[in-house]
Amino acid sequence: MANATGFRPLDQRFCPFRRLVAVLTMQDALLALTKYWTDRGCIVVQPFNTEVGAGTLNPATVLRVLGPEPWRVAYVEPSVRPDDARYGENPNRLQTHTQFQVILKPDPGDPQELYLGSLEALGIDVRAHDVRFVEDNWASPALGAWGLGWEVWLDGLEITQFTYFQQAGGMTLDPVSVEITYGIERIMMALQGVDHFKKIAYAPGISYGEAFGQAEYEMSRYYLDDADVEANKRLFEEFAAEARKMLDARLPVPAHSFVLKCSHIFNVLDARGSISTTERARAFGRMRGLAREVAGLWAERRAELGHPLGVAEVPAVAEKPSSFEDVVAPATLLFEIGTEELPPHEVLRTVDAVREAVTSKLGATRLTHGEVTVHGTPRRIVVLVPAVAPREPDAERTVRGPRVSAAFDADGNPTKAVQGFARGQGVEVSALGRVEENGVEFVALTRTDAGRGAVEVLSGLLAEVVADLRAEKNMKWNDPKLSFTRPIRWLVALLGSTPVPVAVSSLVSGTVTRVHRTASSPVVEVSTADGYLEFLAGHGIQADASVRAASIVEAAQELAASVGGVVEVDGLLDEVTNLVEWPTPILGSFEERYLELPGQILTTVMRKHQRYLPVRSADGSLLPHFVAVANGSVDADLVRAGNEAVLRARYEDAAFFWRADLKTPLEEMKSGLAKLTFADKLGSMADRASRIAALAGRFASVVDADRETLDRAGALAKFDLGSQMVIELSSLAGVMAREYASRAGETPEVAQALWEMELPRSAGDALPTSVPGALLSLADRFDLLAGLFGIGAQPTGSSDPFGLRRAALGAVSVLRAFPDLRAITVPLALSLAAEGLDVSAEALETAREFAVRRYEQALLDAGHEHRFVQAVLPLADSPVLADETLAQLESLAGNESFDALVAALQRVRRIVPAGVSASYDASVLSEPAEVALHKAFDGVSRDVTGLAAFVAAAEGLTAPINTFFDEVLVMAEDPAVKAARLGLLASIRDFAAPVLDWTQL
Amino acid sequence: MANATGFRPLDQRFCPFRRLVAVLTMQDALLALTKYWTDRGCIVVQPFNTEVGAGTLNPATVLRVLGPEPWRVAYVEPSVRPDDARYGENPNRLQTHTQFQVILKPDPGDPQELYLGSLEALGIDVRAHDVRFVEDNWASPALGAWGLGWEVWLDGLEITQFTYFQQAGGMTLDPVSVEITYGIERIMMALQGVDHFKKIAYAPGISYGEAFGQAEYEMSRYYLDDADVEANKRLFEEFAAEARKMLDARLPVPAHSFVLKCSHIFNVLDARGSISTTERARAFGRMRGLAREVAGLWAERRAELGHPLGVAEVPAVAEKPSSFEDVVAPATLLFEIGTEELPPHEVLRTVDAVREAVTSKLGATRLTHGEVTVHGTPRRIVVLVPAVAPREPDAERTVRGPRVSAAFDADGNPTKAVQGFARGQGVEVSALGRVEENGVEFVALTRTDAGRGAVEVLSGLLAEVVADLRAEKNMKWNDPKLSFTRPIRWLVALLGSTPVPVAVSSLVSGTVTRVHRTASSPVVEVSTADGYLEFLAGHGIQADASVRAASIVEAAQELAASVGGVVEVDGLLDEVTNLVEWPTPILGSFEERYLELPGQILTTVMRKHQRYLPVRSADGSLLPHFVAVANGSVDADLVRAGNEAVLRARYEDAAFFWRADLKTPLEEMKSGLAKLTFADKLGSMADRASRIAALAGRFASVVDADRETLDRAGALAKFDLGSQMVIELSSLAGVMAREYASRAGETPEVAQALWEMELPRSAGDALPTSVPGALLSLADRFDLLAGLFGIGAQPTGSSDPFGLRRAALGAVSVLRAFPDLRAITVPLALSLAAEGLDVSAEALETAREFAVRRYEQALLDAGHEHRFVQAVLPLADSPVLADETLAQLESLAGNESFDALVAALQRVRRIVPAGVSASYDASVLSEPAEVALHKAFDGVSRDVTGLAAFVAAAEGLTAPINTFFDEVLVMAEDPAVKAARLGLLASIRDFAAPVLDWTQL
Repeated sequence: MANATGFRPLDQRFCPFRRLVAVLTMQDALLALTKYWTDRGCIVVQPFNTEVGAGTLNPATVLRVLGPEPWRVAYVEPSVRPDDARYGENPNRLQTHTQFQVILKPDPGDPQELYLGSLEALGIDVRAHDVRFVEDNWASPALGAWGLGWEVWLDGLEITQFTYFQQAGGMTLDPVSVEITYGIERIMMALQGVDHFKKIAYAPGISYGEAFGQAEYEMSRYYLDDADVEANKRLFEEFAAEARKMLDARLPVPAHSFVLKCSHIFNVLDARGSISTTERARAFGRMRGLAREVAGLWAERRAELGHPLGVAEVPAVAEKPSSFEDVVAPATLLFEIGTEELPPHEVLRTVDAVREAVTSKLGATRLTHGEVTVHGTPRRIVVLVPAVAPREPDAERTVRGPRVSAAFDADGNPTKAVQGFARGQGVEVSALGRVEENGVEFVALTRTDAGRGAVEVLSGLLAEVVADLRAEKNMKWNDPKLSFTRPIRWLVALLGSTPVPVAVSSLVSGTVTRVHRTASSPVVEVSTADGYLEFLAGHGIQADASVRAASIVEAAQELAASVGGVVEVDGLLDEVTNLVEWPTPILGSFEERYLELPGQILTTVMRKHQRYLPVRSADGSLLPHFVAVANGSVDADLVRAGNEAVLRARYEDAAFFWRADLKTPLEEMKSGLAKLTFADKLGSMADRASRIAALAGRFASVVDADRETLDRAGALAKFDLGSQMVIELSSLAGVMAREYASRAGETPEVAQALWEMELPRSAGDALPTSVPGALLSLADRFDLLAGLFGIGAQPTGSSDPFGLRRAALGAVSVLRAFPDLRAITVPLALSLAAEGLDVSAEALETAREFAVRRYEQALLDAGHEHRFVQAVLPLADSPVLADETLAQLESLAGNESFDALVAALQRVRRIVPAGVSASYDASVLSEPAEVALHKAFDGVSRDVTGLAAFVAAAEGLTAPINTFFDEVLVMAEDPAVKAARLGLLASIRDFAAPVLDWTQL
Repeated sequence: MANATGFRPLDQRFCPFRRLVAVLTMQDALLALTKYWTDRGCIVVQPFNTEVGAGTLNPATVLRVLGPEPWRVAYVEPSVRPDDARYGENPNRLQTHTQFQVILKPDPGDPQELYLGSLEALGIDVRAHDVRFVEDNWASPALGAWGLGWEVWLDGLEITQFTYFQQAGGMTLDPVSVEITYGIERIMMALQGVDHFKKIAYAPGISYGEAFGQAEYEMSRYYLDDADVEANKRLFEEFAAEARKMLDARLPVPAHSFVLKCSHIFNVLDARGSISTTERARAFGRMRGLAREVAGLWAERRAELGHPLGVAEVPAVAEKPSSFEDVVAPATLLFEIGTEELPPHEVLRTVDAVREAVTSKLGATRLTHGEVTVHGTPRRIVVLVPAVAPREPDAERTVRGPRVSAAFDADGNPTKAVQGFARGQGVEVSALGRVEENGVEFVALTRTDAGRGAVEVLSGLLAEVVADLRAEKNMKWNDPKLSFTRPIRWLVALLGSTPVPVAVSSLVSGTVTRVHRTASSPVVEVSTADGYLEFLAGHGIQADASVRAASIVEAAQELAASVGGVVEVDGLLDEVTNLVEWPTPILGSFEERYLELPGQILTTVMRKHQRYLPVRSADGSLLPHFVAVANGSVDADLVRAGNEAVLRARYEDAAFFWRADLKTPLEEMKSGLAKLTFADKLGSMADRASRIAALAGRFASVVDADRETLDRAGALAKFDLGSQMVIELSSLAGVMAREYASRAGETPEVAQALWEMELPRSAGDALPTSVPGALLSLADRFDLLAGLFGIGAQPTGSSDPFGLRRAALGAVSVLRAFPDLRAITVPLALSLAAEGLDVSAEALETAREFAVRRYEQALLDAGHEHRFVQAVLPLADSPVLADETLAQLESLAGNESFDALVAALQRVRRIVPAGVSASYDASVLSEPAEVALHKAFDGVSRDVTGLAAFVAAAEGLTAPINTFFDEVLVMAEDPAVKAARLGLLASIRDFAAPVLDWTQL
């Protein structure tokens, strides 16, 4: 019986604590999960007894997923992330948070359903809540590990990481493991409806804060303030050395524990802000190397031990169907490929790919059929083809044999040749006929290919479609052969109401589909292909994305209108549409006070983190509302409340940082940069910001710029990296600089320049629009390039930890966008950047070459013809010039006169040996053609820039050159004549050379 | 439904492993315990995320037991003990074993009952099994922690450590915590009936070995073979420094984690055999210091935080009873003090103490009563006093006033004095009478003290008995004032059938007692004191120890006779009797093959470890049987099987070592000593053994000895420290040397000497009987003393990590036992020992002084009079001489003539100034008395040794001395005469001085 305060009275004797709560406590939740998973065959192990950053690192995961042995395990793992230390003050962030980790190896085939059962074991009504699997791929370069999967959302809150583990320790996993990682504190906060982790009821009468608050504070102090940096650096070395020794001793278990100790120490150093970028890269490389060796050694040792736990069984490849029903009349084909939640963009890609595949494969048969339509949702690709003929018609086919003349001897008897042909075809010679081709008569056999029944044809064809499915990033699951973006779990294939047997790898098609997992009957029989979309709709599934999108827009606008607003769907509609099978837009609200925050923060959180549609008033200003799109029929109030709580928590965080930052003078924020180490030998982030400012100033001495704006923006460069907002939400770097600068009274131009300095942040991102912005952007990037190439930290292989490729491409893009800044060439920029640094000439040349390669790649990616790109590449030190030349080249190419000029210049170039210099004694020339050429060349203006001008000037040389070659023997016997002729040609060659690389054309 | 193999079929789909078992798996057991304790208000925490040696070290125990806050917690703790690493080969020993730890703070009052409930939760039928609480006190000097409690035995197997935590981090705990530590692997092996930890069914279908076998092997490799010693030494320093820094930063939580890391590293180094004795002492000192600071700081911080979990309530002190029933006729007093299991020797002590207290306290009242009898069991002290009078008789008492002569003036009127007296007594002057004392008459008042009722008298008296209870080692529990060897939980007090209210601290007597905890009604009402022993017997409790002992002997002999043997009870009967309330002897057997082991191994294990009574045949040889004495009515077959299994495991271990050792030549065992570091600067154990042999040889050059035996035994000295048996069972050092030497063909004398070398192992232990044995024993001890004093490692305060006090006392004891070796004095032995070492003269003198002090203490402990001991102490460099002198002194003391001699010598000593030398010109003497003294002294033989000879020789001086002093003025005016007289007296003084210290008599 609950008492007045809502607390359940317990026997006080058993409870030393003061308060009693009726909710599911955190310890009960952990026990419930343990019970649930042990009931499903998991063994329980203990958390690892050295600090780990995640349950994945426990050997019960990271080692056991290797090799062929089966393994099912569940355990709690207090996961230590020094970087998340906040002294216990942040409501959602802890230096030690509690993971509940499950490994299912091999994939049991229905891990999502098992997972949903575990939520029910926690008392979560999965029918009322909006539980969704939202694409989230996982990779740990330090572990040489990756997997594909989802974050699981409960009413918008990420509560679980769900991953199909594909690789660990650099080894491909076979079988694949399913990894389920519950974020326990988050789940408990949601279930208990509390807004700070300290308020979680941990056990009856004792809160999380009471149980662990002091440790949270004190360990935060250690990680953030008090850990001895030098001591920890020494510890890192000791542990790495001990790991090395254990590997040499072939002991993967202790080796692994020392790798974990390294990793923790690294995290401590990182939290203390004492890891430079280069140290980070080196430490990661070292840990990755050790982790890979550990994994390899573990796998070896298990094999040597004969795989004590046995070898996991993998489903067998299904037998190909061998008998097929007949269909008597044209019918509709339904083919459904059932999957686990596809990433939204893969829904679109797959729909297109399947449409193309089915269309082309059907086209290659003799079955007549109607138009192929394909629909997609996260969980299914539905192919519908009306009016598929019941059979292929028979077809005649002529097989040509030997010439008649060779087929019969003089006596008309069949030769050995024709006898062999007949035997090969399995007929008598008498059955052969004749055909004539190009006037020659051949022996021939006319064969009839009997048309196959539609079911047989489709059986093979559809299997191929499935087998050929590929995504941008593919994975394996418990299937011996298939590979796709997410597991394919079922196939439905019906021709009318006739089942089409499709067997592909271990999958066999049937006539049952799966509807919502939370439906009372989640698996339903499909009797016929006709009206399948309506059939699905009857089960709450809208397979047609355009209908889903329209319904989202309509309902969302209606919801927005109810609060006087308009919903903003641009850029998000495809994604939202393809995250659900039955969109249920729900209007949520947040407190108006958050509107004080810059709109970009609010919308970034809504759109990027939560996939909520923002709601704006008619004037475009944000309203304190949003539309979340849930899946299927849910308890709208419950789901709304959940989503609102998630947004509130995120905005509360942001508001906290915002207010704190606004109280902080820009200079003070900037002073924080001194504490951020940038890279070995390159000092702190403050040093880097000063270099950027100085470099931008040097650029401004070469080109025209608003010096006042540039100098002020330079003085403030990167100050927002010291703001709490950017420390928390690093993607807002630049955005916050602009905001905070404006609010601190800086000019709009300065604010703009500070923002543009960060542009472009990725390929395809916006570019600066102001000259100060552009110069700062260039300075930022050239400083990075010169500095890091200078210390030998250039990218190797696929590894580019400092983002130098992005930086180089960005710099080139900015240069291309500002023709006025053409005085700043790549080598000039690099040499100016190097002024403040100690960089060798070789390093600068390597950096220049590196930037040119990025430019080349960008041109090729944009679809420019390879030979044209190569032709202008010598000009790429000035991308503006190269761009212009390329454009001219592309417009000239194909033009007859240009082509003739090119051909003439090629003749010139080919005949002149490399060493010949561009001077000649014109007086020696006497032949009319050579005199004519000399005169023509003499008359050409040498003062031309760019290809077009060159062509205009040089076009007149085409004819004289050709005539010269037709009439004059260059290699005259008289050496003086020969020298003059070669000198003339060399002069023409050298005149053309700087324009572009003619050899490429 | 079980299938034919007895395995329960499970859904295969959920079980990736190959085998299925029907037993309670280890993971189920952990879950069951977790559930049981959370249902009783415990919170669950996770194992600590750095290696710990025991659950106690988790901050959830070692920090939370400090201070006043309540705390109830339960958790699993994989406990890492590198020293126990055995590559997974030993069936019972693991480098990581699993503890389940429970802390109840404050003591809930019935923790044993709660604990038994937890065993039932594991499916253990506590009625059928023999579950016992066997004294086991716990102390961790490294943690500054100790507590009193028990090991819990399940059919002879130690399954749990149960401790009332009294101190931690050097701080006294208030309230006290109950700590319950389950040894999970042991419990599982017993419950599942498997004989190797690897065979434990860990989870359905997967054994412990399959789950953790590889880790067990590999971590053993690390700890025993592969850990880098130098790296670990550096790690120790880093962690200790980091702990220091965190203490300075007032952060006890991280500081604690670094202390744990230190502790683990220390254990690693220890397992690698690379910690010398001095390093060990230093490391322990350092860790202890840090741990104490952590504890103090934690307590301070919690106080600063205002004790967030509140303050535990302690039971209030009960009110003293104020009304008492009347009893009309003499009746029997029953007083029962109910306790938790007392240590057996405390049962005996407490029975005596309570008998004495009740007897003397009753004697101080006016209640008549019969004889006081007191009985004791582990759980109760029962006092029975027949025929206690119902009331005290009234008593008259005379109060004396002033003398009559001062009480009345000449007129007979009362003086102020007598008026004041009357007023003080509250009566009129007229009511006063008179008494005469020693012939003087005084005013007096005769008062009547009314006798109190027996119930009232007993109420106060019995409360005092309880309050005064003290044991050798006392503890606190959840009572505000009481302190005893174990908690007192109930009191029964009845006079006939009338309750006697007794209130002491929080305890109040009643009329209910507690019988066996496993009885169907464990709490029963007692209606009358009469026939209480029979009443208890009716509940299966035999309170009379003599009856218990007799029944054990009788039943055990009967059981032994059934197998043709005789049971050996000597030295164990008291303990076994006082471990049970109702002895149930059970005959167990072991396999005959273990009889190949030396009897001392077998009986050591039986008697010391298991408290089993060995069974011998008529010729004294061991039979393969034993008698275990269970408590109460148990399932004998079950208990027998359990006890047999425990013994089998222990014997199997021993047999393994025995066989391995027998295969090893003595020299090979001895070579192992080189790897055992002894102490800094003192080399290895091999070095020490060589020094001992050399020193014994030097001794033999001073005294007579069998050199052949001595040299051979010296060459083998301590070889058994390299045997597996002694490595495992160190208490068998010496025993095994004798065994192995005999079996290797050494002479009986050599074997004997090797054994005797280790004697005496403690105060009161046997001493060597052979001269070679004695010399080796002396060499062993003097080497230790000289060596460790030489390196400055002498004991300080109560700390004596190297056992130097024991060594010094042992050496003195051996010297005393061998008068023939009197040539070996303490200083000589030390200087000979120092020959092989670099020891300063000061250090040797300190060591000599230290040994003399031990000798002094031994004499005082043996009851010798202090002054006599002091008198012979100057002779203690030769304890034999001092012993002899002391014996003579004690026999002479009180003898008139001796006392006169002593007095005379004292007169001599007192008058002669210190500087006077012992020579004089006899010709100057002229007075008859002085001449007589001179002649008498001249006639005394100077050639005397020992007190008795001295006295015999000097006795004749008594009279001349006394006459001299009576008749002669020593300080004559003539300087020559004065000098001669003083010289004569000084000569007598110096003659007496070496005999003993006369000033002490």
